[in-house]
Amino acid sequence: MRGGSVPQPVDIIIRGGLVVTLNDSGEVYPAGAIAIKGDAIVAVGEAGDITRRFAARTELSYPGDIILPGLINAHTHAAMTCFRGLADDLPLEIWLNEHMFPAERQISRELVYWGTSLAIAEMILSGTTTFCDMYLFADAVAQAAKEAGMRAVVGEVLYDFPSTNYGPPENGLKFTEELIRTWHDDPLIQVAVQPHTIYTCSPDLLTRCGDLAERYDTRLIIHLAETRREVTDCQERFGVTPVQHLLDLELLNTRLVADHGVVLSTQDRELLAEHGASVVHCPESNMKLASGVAPVVELLGQGVNVALGTDGCASNNNLDMFQEMDTAAKLHKVHHLDPTVLPAPEVLRLATRGGAQALNLLHRTGSLEPGKQADIIVIDGDQPHLTPLYNVYSQLVYAATGADVRTVLIAGQVVMQDRRLLTLDAAEAMAQVREFARQIKPLAH
Amino acid sequence: MRGGSVPQPVDIIIRGGLVVTLNDSGEVYPAGAIAIKGDAIVAVGEAGDITRRFAARTELSYPGDIILPGLINAHTHAAMTCFRGLADDLPLEIWLNEHMFPAERQISRELVYWGTSLAIAEMILSGTTTFCDMYLFADAVAQAAKEAGMRAVVGEVLYDFPSTNYGPPENGLKFTEELIRTWHDDPLIQVAVQPHTIYTCSPDLLTRCGDLAERYDTRLIIHLAETRREVTDCQERFGVTPVQHLLDLELLNTRLVADHGVVLSTQDRELLAEHGASVVHCPESNMKLASGVAPVVELLGQGVNVALGTDGCASNNNLDMFQEMDTAAKLHKVHHLDPTVLPAPEVLRLATRGGAQALNLLHRTGSLEPGKQADIIVIDGDQPHLTPLYNVYSQLVYAATGADVRTVLIAGQVVMQDRRLLTLDAAEAMAQVREFARQIKPLAH
Repeated sequence: MRGGSVPQPVDIIIRGGLVVTLNDSGEVYPAGAIAIKGDAIVAVGEAGDITRRFAARTELSYPGDIILPGLINAHTHAAMTCFRGLADDLPLEIWLNEHMFPAERQISRELVYWGTSLAIAEMILSGTTTFCDMYLFADAVAQAAKEAGMRAVVGEVLYDFPSTNYGPPENGLKFTEELIRTWHDDPLIQVAVQPHTIYTCSPDLLTRCGDLAERYDTRLIIHLAETRREVTDCQERFGVTPVQHLLDLELLNTRLVADHGVVLSTQDRELLAEHGASVVHCPESNMKLASGVAPVVELLGQGVNVALGTDGCASNNNLDMFQEMDTAAKLHKVHHLDPTVLPAPEVLRLATRGGAQALNLLHRTGSLEPGKQADIIVIDGDQPHLTPLYNVYSQLVYAATGADVRTVLIAGQVVMQDRRLLTLDAAEAMAQVREFARQIKPLAH
Repeated sequence: MRGGSVPQPVDIIIRGGLVVTLNDSGEVYPAGAIAIKGDAIVAVGEAGDITRRFAARTELSYPGDIILPGLINAHTHAAMTCFRGLADDLPLEIWLNEHMFPAERQISRELVYWGTSLAIAEMILSGTTTFCDMYLFADAVAQAAKEAGMRAVVGEVLYDFPSTNYGPPENGLKFTEELIRTWHDDPLIQVAVQPHTIYTCSPDLLTRCGDLAERYDTRLIIHLAETRREVTDCQERFGVTPVQHLLDLELLNTRLVADHGVVLSTQDRELLAEHGASVVHCPESNMKLASGVAPVVELLGQGVNVALGTDGCASNNNLDMFQEMDTAAKLHKVHHLDPTVLPAPEVLRLATRGGAQALNLLHRTGSLEPGKQADIIVIDGDQPHLTPLYNVYSQLVYAATGADVRTVLIAGQVVMQDRRLLTLDAAEAMAQVREFARQIKPLAH
């Protein structure tokens, strides 16, 4: 490919600065570049080599900056941006029964669409290129993501009682199946089957969810073992832990994504590992709601795939995955009284490859490798709080925040350039959500 | 003051948006303003009332934004920006002995000056208007702060062995005394006596430090009860805990500021309360170094004044007090398995009034009140991740980061306007620190 050979035409070459690939061997190019054609990465390497081999329509140049795979927020309820800060610092029961549930009774397709659009703006601005969402009106979530060019795994939340969206419980699976069919083969949007919890879904509903997920080969995503009370109640009702309950229902397999996984016994963790299920760790939500510290170090030690998520804005209260990485890395160190656990490179892997594997997207995203989708973010390295640079993983996990992201590509499309959102109107989403908020609760001091 | 009365001339009127005063009654003005004359606040109130009563040379208008007192970073080693990310995820002994101590042997007055300048840029950019620093070459720290118009409490770190700055140990107190005299009556810079720890300072040195602090009525600031090992060693050596050791040396009084305070018995906390000492909580450093969780909820319950600090960049790795507030609020919730502890308004008080009280600056800063210094920050409220707004305290603690600060005043001087630093050259500080970093350790992957 050297010498007189003709450069291969591509659409975009993006060059650093550092390129952190997160490929299997963890390659980092001190002065790297990526060639992109259509939605996919063609090559990753030293900038000199890439620019010799390829000729691009568009060159994006970021000397002194850090280029890495887009982050994957593996668990959120995006439209809950509408409830950000509505009720905090309260006992869980009061928070849920007196604030969240009444607020959620007011939701509509419009609120979900605009709340999700606002969340997508926030996520792109903070370097997330894929999110996995569980909420009502999942069709509106998919629509908002598709319009913004955002990669998403969506699913309608299912439970034993009527839904504001699909009405009586028996309609939920039908709604989900239609959603799966609508988005079948879409390059950006995946649909998953998403029962809410083991305490809001009967064994019969869970079994039917599992059947649907198997029939269409989708993920089966559920809040699992989030609180002590959930585990105690499950043991009283079914005589087993939530994980064992899913095993008994034959739902423990590689399709299963367990959100939270805070209260897990050694045997639970062994079962998750043995059956290839994933756990989505949401440290800030677990801390703020005082659920507990998920046994992430133990899960990783036992070989379970772990992803990272922010949970919804009502329990965080933002969607910044950089802050989530920082908190995860620090929380487990103090929990184990061991500063060596969850080192920075491992935490970055949870927020990228871990999420991709959980969502069955590792063939598409989670690292910068030829053949994968061009989901790429650029960190502005020329800032006081990112100076000096000794170790790029430390810098990304412990010093950076989402506000340091300057440019974002999803599937080869530049969705943000130098902090300017190109695929959605954040001002309109903010105006719409402020109007919903005024109806939900006037500002009080 | 109404009707035909002549408006009083002032220098600046800054108007919101919300004005969060943090005064004794916790007043918040939904559309507030502040009148400033010279370095001080003349009045705080409803914007309409302020603009009727005062006529300003300069009007700064921030509709839709949030105005609050500047944050106080009550414990840091500012120049350690030079070691940001140099060595992470390591056991404490290896981190200290193989990385921090060798790096610190290379420091010079120039490194401290530029490292501190970089830290001040970072702190102003993230809404801190006062910092309390412990480091070598404290004269260079004071100089950097003074030049940047930053409020600071500085102190030369003292211990029983020779210092790169002042040489043999006996020179340390003399150096400190000269520093106190040099900065006597400065409106921005205070000097404190700062022995390093009870295990690096003999009882004799500690006693002489206490005498010096008493003679000049300064704060006496020390790392105290940071690790289990410190407490165990103290008990073996002196038969008492570190707090009791200071009591025995007659150093436990309102002048004492105990940094970290992680490992404190009930009796230690009672002693701190009884004698009016302050504790500076550094949650992110304590988490990252795996020191433990300081008993902040218990300290506050027992009436101890608590401030908040980031510690140095080697153990954090940034100086963002908004992230520190978020982490503090969440850490204690999960530690106590109680979502009601450390609610957002209380955490904001730790980062403002708590710090001011610890540093004997509550008459000057920590709240927006007539007669106090105009140390004021403005948060850009018109952003996706700060939308909608139900509760301003939740928004500041759980959703905002330092990057949301748009304008900063210290002692009535606008030091940052719309993210542009006006009193220091961040680019030069970054260039200088990068050069020091290249000498310390070349970039490795």
